[in-house]
Parts: sequence; C-alpha cells; structure tokens
Amino acid sequence: MLQADSVRPAVGVTGATPAPREVPARILPVPGTVSPELQALIGAPLRSGWDTPPTTPEGWKALAAAGLAAARPNVAAMAARLQVTITPGTLAGVRIFTVTPAAIAPRNGDRLLVQIHGGCYVLNPAEAGLPEAILIAGLGGFKVIAVDYRMPPEAYFPAALDDAMAVWKALSATGDARRMGLIGTSAGGALVLAMALRAKRDNVPMPGAIASGTPMSDVTKTGDSFQTNAFVDNVLVSTDGFCDAAVRFYANGHDLDDPLLSSVYGDMQGFSPTILTTGTRDLLLSNTVRVHRKLRALGIVSDLHVYEGQSHAHYGRDERIPETREAFSEITAFFDKHLVGCADSSVR
Amino acid sequence: MLQADSVRPAVGVTGATPAPREVPARILPVPGTVSPELQALIGAPLRSGWDTPPTTPEGWKALAAAGLAAARPNVAAMAARLQVTITPGTLAGVRIFTVTPAAIAPRNGDRLLVQIHGGCYVLNPAEAGLPEAILIAGLGGFKVIAVDYRMPPEAYFPAALDDAMAVWKALSATGDARRMGLIGTSAGGALVLAMALRAKRDNVPMPGAIASGTPMSDVTKTGDSFQTNAFVDNVLVSTDGFCDAAVRFYANGHDLDDPLLSSVYGDMQGFSPTILTTGTRDLLLSNTVRVHRKLRALGIVSDLHVYEGQSHAHYGRDERIPETREAFSEITAFFDKHLVGCADSSVR
Repeated sequence: MLQADSVRPAVGVTGATPAPREVPARILPVPGTVSPELQALIGAPLRSGWDTPPTTPEGWKALAAAGLAAARPNVAAMAARLQVTITPGTLAGVRIFTVTPAAIAPRNGDRLLVQIHGGCYVLNPAEAGLPEAILIAGLGGFKVIAVDYRMPPEAYFPAALDDAMAVWKALSATGDARRMGLIGTSAGGALVLAMALRAKRDNVPMPGAIASGTPMSDVTKTGDSFQTNAFVDNVLVSTDGFCDAAVRFYANGHDLDDPLLSSVYGDMQGFSPTILTTGTRDLLLSNTVRVHRKLRALGIVSDLHVYEGQSHAHYGRDERIPETREAFSEITAFFDKHLVGCADSSVR
Repeated sequence: MLQADSVRPAVGVTGATPAPREVPARILPVPGTVSPELQALIGAPLRSGWDTPPTTPEGWKALAAAGLAAARPNVAAMAARLQVTITPGTLAGVRIFTVTPAAIAPRNGDRLLVQIHGGCYVLNPAEAGLPEAILIAGLGGFKVIAVDYRMPPEAYFPAALDDAMAVWKALSATGDARRMGLIGTSAGGALVLAMALRAKRDNVPMPGAIASGTPMSDVTKTGDSFQTNAFVDNVLVSTDGFCDAAVRFYANGHDLDDPLLSSVYGDMQGFSPTILTTGTRDLLLSNTVRVHRKLRALGIVSDLHVYEGQSHAHYGRDERIPETREAFSEITAFFDKHLVGCADSSVR
C-alpha cells in the first residue's frame, strides 16, 4: 500500500541501509516548454566525438585550432549583430581582447568586466573564447576585458589561473575593484571562483560581483548530476568524456581536488556576491548548486538560475535564442545591483 | 571529430530538426555529497505502491486515513522535539490547526504564516499535514495557521482552494497582510500560488511573501523533468503514478490547465516575493524552475534553492536531517527579509 512518506521518519534515523537505484532506459522528448530556438539545441544529437578525445598534446592542439577556425566566422557574425568591437592586445604580459559595445550603458561608465572563457581548459583559444564576452558586452552594455589565457600544451596548471590573476591584479590596481566584475562559464566559471580564492590568499582586491556559469567546480567526478544527467546532457554527455580528459591534460598530474582546480572545496568566506547559472539537463547541475549552497551557508549573497531543459552552457550559445537574452538579462541585473556604479559615492 | 560546440550557431537558426534522445539504463549510486541522514532518504527504494493508486473514492479515503494513523505518532514526536504546540480549531468555517512555537521570535511578534499542506490534494488530512507547519514554527519561530482543507471524496476542486482562501480572507482582514506569509509544498506549493492568483482576482490583500516548495504548478504532465527525473525521484517516481491519479480525482473532470490547478499558466504580475525550493532529483524540478523563470521575467523578487540529490519534497521530512534545517533557515531568512515586521513603521 502507498505510504504516507511525507511524515515517515528519515530512514537514516531508523537505520535502514541506503542503496543505489536502477533507472530504466528512456526516450526523452524535446520539451515543449522552451522556445523553438532552444528546442533545436536540446534536440541536437550528442556532441560529436564526445567520447573520442585526443590522446596526444599535438592532438589537443590540433583540435583547439580546428575549433578556432570553425568559430571565427560565427564569432565575427555575433559581434556584428550585437555591434561589439573586438581589439586584441596584451596586459601584464597576457593576451587579452578588449570587447566594447557600440554604447556603454551610462550606469556602466566606470565599470568593467573581466571574462574568462570555458573549453575544459584546453579549447576555445583566441576569438573562440569570446562569445560570452560579446554577449555581456552587447546585451548588457559593459566594457569587457577577455583573457586569452595560455592552455596546454603551451602551458599547464596553474597557467590559466596565473594569467587570469595577472590581468585581474593589473586592472584592479587601476581603480575601485568594486566597480569591476568577473564572468566565466564552465572552466571559466571555475576559474572566476578560483580567482576569488587566490585574491583572498594574495590580498588582491575582491571583485564587486561574480557571474559563474555552470562551473567546473569539482573535477573529481563527484556530484550527483554527473550520474543523473549522464547521457541527458548532450554537450558534455558523461563524466567519462572529452572534458574530463581535457582537465586531466591541463592538471598535468596535479591533485584534482586542489581548490584551485575544484573550487567547491575552497574556503569561500568573504566572497563577492555571486550569480550562478545552469540548466535542468546540465551534467554540472550539481557542481553549480553545490557552490550555491556553500556560498549561502556562509551568508554570501548568491542567486541561482536554472533554465528549463538546458544542457551544459546552452544558455551562452546565441543571442537569437530568447533564453540566452533572458539569462544575460539576469546577469546584467545582478552586476547592476552589486557593482559599485557611477551613482554610488559612498562606500557600500 | 570533436567540434567547437560553444560557438556553433543554434541548430534552429540553421534549420536542423530536433529529435528525442535515447538515454541508456543506469545505476545511480547514493551521492556522497550530502549528509548521511539525507543519504538514507536518497537511498530508499521507490515509494511503495507508487504505481498502484486506489481506483475508488473509498479506496482513496482509506489510504488517507491509513496515512494519518501512521503519521500521528511521528508528527507528535516532531512537535515535541521542536517544542511546538498544536491546537485544533476552525476559522471561517474551515478546519485549522494553530501551531505555536515555545518562543515566538521577537521580530515575528506581529507576523503570521498560513501553511497549506501537500499530498496531491487527497492525502495528509488533519495532523498528517502538519510537518511543514511544525518545522517553520519550531525552526523559524513563527506562529502558523495550518489549513486542514476539505479533500475528496468529501469535496472536489476548487474546495481546497476555497477553504484556503476563506482562511486567508479572514486572517488578512485582521491586520496588515504584509506581515503575513504563505507557505506550502507540493500540492500546497501550488495552492499558495493559486491563492495569490485568486487574491489578485478577488481584490483580497496579497501576502507579504510566499514560500512555495516544489509546487505542482503544472498538472498537465508538461515539463522536462517529468521525463528526465522519471525513476530518478524515489518519492513521486513518475508522472504516471499515484500523484497524477490523485490530482485527476480531485479535479473531478475540471480542465487540468486551469491556472487554479496549474498555476504556471496564471498571470503572476504583481506577485509577492516568492522563495522556491526543489532538488536535483525532483520530478517537479521543471515545475519549480518554470515558476521561478516566470516570476523573474515579470521582475518579481524570487529566490530559487535547489538541493543536491533530493527528490520531491525531501527537504521537508525531518529536522534531524541537516539539509532540512538548511532549507528552513533559507525560508526563514526570506520571510524575515520580506515580511513587514515589528521594526518597520514605514510603508515598504
């Protein structure tokens, strides 16, 4: 007979042994609860080659280069649609792009964002890493410095973090760091969290706010959605796929549970206000909500946004998808609320 | 070869046809990322009888009565542990319980919560509906009026909502409704949303804040997590289970997409600040995040909390589970922030 589970005492209290659960094979339809544009992303097949990552440094380098070649025209088209200007340069010896919208919003006149791209620490070099910077610049009206950090085989852990920190140190020394925010997704979402951990350790100013999208905050394969959303997420697909191979390539033998690689294990006391973004099908749903819970347990201002039906980082693909505009509108509103702006004359 | 998906244009933009996804059978281990007490809940087998609901009014009534008999000692023990007093009564002709903590928090001296229980509109009569009221009274220091609304076969849609509204109308007429909040989970989470829709329609005061836990906000089987979390959630298990049968029994032929049954389709303009709670394994994860997105799109203050590994309403089971204290701490903080309190003399 059906039992009144809602008032049954916790099993742990009564001593039963928890057991794994068998989940039968299923066919997942494309949900009708999202826009047609997003339905197309959700209904796409599993990412090609997700389980056949390169096995040599040269193979990874060739894959990143091929991805860049494929990305360039799409990135240029997105920048043109959003009227964003992209200027390459260097800062503190690190390759950067300055991404500037046609019109910087008046409230953002003295604000700046630093964007750290994703790609499992190995992919999305140069312009391939710019879509997020273009989206937040164009949709949010921010000036953005995008960090084109070194990646293996050019350099290994902690090179990406070192480069990102070098840029942050230089920029935060030029003005009030509370007017500056960090934004990143996936590996970039983890890197912005690791930057805050490093800033605390090194007595570098903390940013005014952080936007961390579906962060690779735990690369030790720990987290329930690595199991529940395996083969449900059509981007990362499985924790035994390319992204896991890539992070091991980057870590180069370093402990994967180091908080600078798996930030969920770091001490987040004193963190900046942080907005977290993920999707219900995201393999990193648990990675994301675990960071949210950790921040909230410390009393840090942290907002969580979970988008219906989306796999890993689907929200950052294309501004012609309504849910992408929605997500970047939330991120913009969060920065507007928490970054010190031109109208703020007092210390917060 | 692996492609640079992050910069590939949306498939919809390029015209491919979305397709359903085959997900293989899997074994889900109990996650190590939650407390041992919660691991016990997560590792419990599928709810007994989930797919064998009663088929007659008498059968449902007997099931509800059996659940009540099983619940009474557990509810009494929880009330004793949390030093909460339970007093039955009636208000506006509706059965209620007044749930009072040993010490009402000073800031809550002039505040009041109205709690609407869950149970798929058919289960959890009388004391069986009180755990949530006891938890928020005992852990949050609030006085709570719990509504023991009529359920089928005693009465059908919209009897539950009528009873809840009769109580809310009576209470909100006794003082500043901005000092009063609504709280409910599952069917109760949907009912508190429907109450706000009805309050708008009927020019009854809106509450100061709403806590809606994993709401049955769409009973038309629409929402992606009905598919992705089928057989992953060990409480509701599947949208073809007992809860769906129960809501059809309650609806009694009424259209299931009526916003008073499926609140996600309602006009939420002007809603009160709302906190939403769910879990990564919740069959109603999509029901919850869709309400969050709808509120946020309207600019309503709304916070989302998603707990690692939890199935439907796991967070409200037992205060000896650390994550239950965490969830009710978040809900308490939300009410503290948004309900007008003793210290507030000005209009918000």
